Amino acid sequence: MAFMRSLLRADISSRRSSCRVPAYAFSCTCTVVRYARCTCTGDGCHTARMAAVNPPSSQVELPGAPPPAANRTRDGEATRATIITAARAAFDEKGYAGTSLREIARNAGVKPSLVVHFYGSKAGLLAATVEWPFDPDTVVREVLAGGPAHIGERLAHVFLGTWEEDGRPNTALTLLHAACERPEAATLARELFTTCVIGPIVTAIDPERAELRASLVASHLLGLHVGRYLLEFGAITAADTDLLEQALASTIQHLCTGPVW
Amino acid sequence: MAFMRSLLRADISSRRSSCRVPAYAFSCTCTVVRYARCTCTGDGCHTARMAAVNPPSSQVELPGAPPPAANRTRDGEATRATIITAARAAFDEKGYAGTSLREIARNAGVKPSLVVHFYGSKAGLLAATVEWPFDPDTVVREVLAGGPAHIGERLAHVFLGTWEEDGRPNTALTLLHAACERPEAATLARELFTTCVIGPIVTAIDPERAELRASLVASHLLGLHVGRYLLEFGAITAADTDLLEQALASTIQHLCTGPVW
Repeated sequence: MAFMRSLLRADISSRRSSCRVPAYAFSCTCTVVRYARCTCTGDGCHTARMAAVNPPSSQVELPGAPPPAANRTRDGEATRATIITAARAAFDEKGYAGTSLREIARNAGVKPSLVVHFYGSKAGLLAATVEWPFDPDTVVREVLAGGPAHIGERLAHVFLGTWEEDGRPNTALTLLHAACERPEAATLARELFTTCVIGPIVTAIDPERAELRASLVASHLLGLHVGRYLLEFGAITAADTDLLEQALASTIQHLCTGPVW
Repeated sequence: MAFMRSLLRADISSRRSSCRVPAYAFSCTCTVVRYARCTCTGDGCHTARMAAVNPPSSQVELPGAPPPAANRTRDGEATRATIITAARAAFDEKGYAGTSLREIARNAGVKPSLVVHFYGSKAGLLAATVEWPFDPDTVVREVLAGGPAHIGERLAHVFLGTWEEDGRPNTALTLLHAACERPEAATLARELFTTCVIGPIVTAIDPERAELRASLVASHLLGLHVGRYLLEFGAITAADTDLLEQALASTIQHLCTGPVW
């Protein structure tokens, strides 16, 4: 986790979030901008973001005065969006290894130091470009609700449901590709899967070999994803989503609570 | 299969194999050079190769005469080895998409037309560079022996046993990486998995949804491979091979004959 923390701390602090706890950042389906997932009891991160976008009406612009914080924040968000667009285009065209942070900065029309300020490193930039295809909080809630008895059904529904949404960039394949090219991207992908998939499952099932069982679930999800969307095995690509969800549910259930050993 | 046939026919014919049937080529653990896996009853392909390497003693070199066929064959094998070495280095360094056939030819010191003559295309060259980590004939034999009752145990033993051998380039990851970069490499990988894994399993299990079950097995193998060797999920990487083999066996068995639906 140290890697993710160091990777993302600069990004989180630059947003002046009210949340002070160590946090991991995701692109998330429930917000239009990246936000810090935290362990605090309130929704400080969301509040901080919304306050920035909708400043109190008492703020008044004075001639000659520095631009108010809200404008600076909007400019910052626009610059971030430009950088992310440039990074996505470069990663798509040349792969993670073939793209330099300097090149992305040039294409975005900003200084490399600003990219480093926002994202810490090229790996941090990769983390920001991938759009994690589900809200990790939703997964955690789904996994923890109801215990291990029907965990397969609940998880299969979350995963397959979000995979099948149209128009979403394929995060897992982006990460896999980058991971094939560079160890730091493999580390990033491992941390994301550990946080979003393996960790929540471990908390929900019998403790004996829980991490191995949960890791096998994560591997199975990756493999099914590769089979359906990358290699496009005929029978899997042609399979009806409901049928595939049943198969995924039964296999997750087998791996979580079945006689694996 | 048409893709693989067109891809590999030039290669097979250039070896003057005695086998005339459409064939698929693999780098195989049971031979030191690539050979054509065929459906003929004898081992024509092996015989042809051995005859080339060990020519009859009646062949005598005459001064001024063209080099005998055996020498030409040896030269051909050496040239092929040089090309494959150059291709592996280039694919490793720049990825499949970032490498041109012309560049590989230049690094190998041969004309691009010779590379095309030997391997047909860049995708054919990729197929030749990957060292398929098991003898497909062995898998077919293992799968077909004994019916579906213990198919999980037999397959887990073959797959995991060969994955764990030292010093072998990681074929599945090479193919995955290339498949992320270009559709023709994804097609190649799909054809290899279909021929070596999915096809044999389909023949060995109950026909209802056999292809979907077999494809789910192939996907699971891919996912486990990614989890253990690419993303290196802690619990999977740390797991004892025997323990992992049991888990793989039980999951393959579940997917082949279990109550998946």
